Amino acid sequence: MSLPRIAVDAMGGDEGVRVMVEGAALARRQHDKFNFLLMGDQAQIERALEGHPGLAGATEIRHCDSMIAGEDKPSQALRRAKGTSMGEAVAAVKRGEAGAAVSAGNTGALMAISKVALRTLPGIDRPALAALLPTLEEQDVIMLDLGANTECDARNLVQFAIMGAAYSRIVTGRARPRVRLLNIGTEDIKGTDDVQAAAQHLRGAHTLALEFDGFVEADKINRGDVDVVVTDGFSGNIALKAIEGSARFVTDLLKTAFASSFRSKVGFLVSRPATELLRHHLDPNNHNGAVFLGLNGVVVKSHGSANAKGVAHAVTVAARLLEEDLTARIGEDLGELGDGMLVNTSGSSAASGKIESGAK
Amino acid sequence: MSLPRIAVDAMGGDEGVRVMVEGAALARRQHDKFNFLLMGDQAQIERALEGHPGLAGATEIRHCDSMIAGEDKPSQALRRAKGTSMGEAVAAVKRGEAGAAVSAGNTGALMAISKVALRTLPGIDRPALAALLPTLEEQDVIMLDLGANTECDARNLVQFAIMGAAYSRIVTGRARPRVRLLNIGTEDIKGTDDVQAAAQHLRGAHTLALEFDGFVEADKINRGDVDVVVTDGFSGNIALKAIEGSARFVTDLLKTAFASSFRSKVGFLVSRPATELLRHHLDPNNHNGAVFLGLNGVVVKSHGSANAKGVAHAVTVAARLLEEDLTARIGEDLGELGDGMLVNTSGSSAASGKIESGAK
Repeated sequence: MSLPRIAVDAMGGDEGVRVMVEGAALARRQHDKFNFLLMGDQAQIERALEGHPGLAGATEIRHCDSMIAGEDKPSQALRRAKGTSMGEAVAAVKRGEAGAAVSAGNTGALMAISKVALRTLPGIDRPALAALLPTLEEQDVIMLDLGANTECDARNLVQFAIMGAAYSRIVTGRARPRVRLLNIGTEDIKGTDDVQAAAQHLRGAHTLALEFDGFVEADKINRGDVDVVVTDGFSGNIALKAIEGSARFVTDLLKTAFASSFRSKVGFLVSRPATELLRHHLDPNNHNGAVFLGLNGVVVKSHGSANAKGVAHAVTVAARLLEEDLTARIGEDLGELGDGMLVNTSGSSAASGKIESGAK
Repeated sequence: MSLPRIAVDAMGGDEGVRVMVEGAALARRQHDKFNFLLMGDQAQIERALEGHPGLAGATEIRHCDSMIAGEDKPSQALRRAKGTSMGEAVAAVKRGEAGAAVSAGNTGALMAISKVALRTLPGIDRPALAALLPTLEEQDVIMLDLGANTECDARNLVQFAIMGAAYSRIVTGRARPRVRLLNIGTEDIKGTDDVQAAAQHLRGAHTLALEFDGFVEADKINRGDVDVVVTDGFSGNIALKAIEGSARFVTDLLKTAFASSFRSKVGFLVSRPATELLRHHLDPNNHNGAVFLGLNGVVVKSHGSANAKGVAHAVTVAARLLEEDLTARIGEDLGELGDGMLVNTSGSSAASGKIESGAK
């Protein structure tokens, strides 16, 4: 059911249509077998496509009069989703006209619309927002949930672990990705009752295609010795933003420091290759594209402030997950779980759970 | 009741007696009106004091045969506290022989022992672990709880806000420190029910000596526009460690980058002043000394791996809080709260609450 076609909400994002279209064009150069459905203002999209004949030839435009605003609460977004560029991009996935949707719009709205339109996979109570973070090693680390679910129980955390591992197998090629639960210590006694219960279950679940390594503390996320970090949406969002903020803090300090003396300025110029490498490694555009895992379809959230390179990265993430059929993989892995306690018997539960998102 | 005397657990910490004593000696040069009670192995302490006649002249040694181990669980530590260097340091504060205790030992054990021996202030359900973090501005930011309480309700959070503000007034001199609740977004709808309820109460509490500014996201903690960041011990510990880990991540990347080419090596040497400034600003020893707020007495936790400069910083924090009589200030502020819902009528509640600590 996963067509090699990606629906893009051309209106979302701070930079508007031009950047979304340019990003799609950049991505297509790496994945030229994919076609695109661009949702938004026909005239604006056509203008933006003028510079990209390759993409234009592989694109169908669906005009939408309206768009979801950044201030719209999830509940408001749900009511007015129909006819918006975001709502129609997700609807295209539901109808099977596209295999994946990409939007740089309001995260909470995208989460709510996707959850209601696409529903969760059987066995998944709640979708989770997952992203790749840089590490000291070659391989990025996947962290989830990043803000889709403010409060999570043990069962949610176990499901997140399975979904994160499926994603990680695609990214790392490892048969059994190393999964850890984010905690405030590595000793068994540490953490909330839900974290404890989730750890106990994962320790016993040997049939799962993952290697559960216990707990990881927030200062070890980037060391490169873990593939998937699992946590609730509140802690995950705080960890993600603390990491981003701290990295910016240090680089800001560095800029000030380098600007503070002539000698430093000279040193900065001489060592430009080093600082360039740093900038490249920390550029969020090189890691852009958070994925809503656990839905009947692939939905990728691009950062609102991403540039064309960042949008291209998000589109490439969507293309990769389509090619590798992430959705089917998660379904198979859930079959391995075989624990009544943890399988969602009510089938889909799009309405369940407080929808939140602090992710940007 | 706060004697100008500080009890130091001379045995705690990875570096042992020598560093604890050297740290106390360094601190005393800035606060020479303070005397010290050094708890631990008499012979080792005397040997360490030989190099520090000034400190030796102002020190009483209390021999202790045993010490709390790093692996001891809080419950074990409580049972065997008596006669240990940590247990006796806290007991000295309880007996009024010292106004403050400083230890670099097991955080969970220190929390449990302090809570049971000193009890919480009337109106405080649970003590919280607070520390100063660097910001882009001159002024550090106080964050609490950093791991003393894994789960916190709205009432705990409001009490933490009051305690953090009292601490901040001493550090910043501001009459009404700017207090924010850590959250996954700044919009009113964001966060857990407890965070929401705490915010609602703080918005209405105009009599408190603090300026409640709503929510702060984890990437804004270090911006320097907030004085106190309030959160539960799980999120706080994760935010703190994510900030530490990310800062280390960037500096490690930088080292690798600078080492990657001759040109960079040269640049690094030329710009040494800049990188020195960075190192100074990020050196945890310059921010060492986390405080347990809400107890009948001052207890300061020094980082286990702190060097003498770090220990001196922790001792100086204790001295400062004693001089300014933090305990009395918190008591007064709680009087201002005047909300039955939030005042702990059961007086002290040393036994209440799950004692945890992921703080190091």
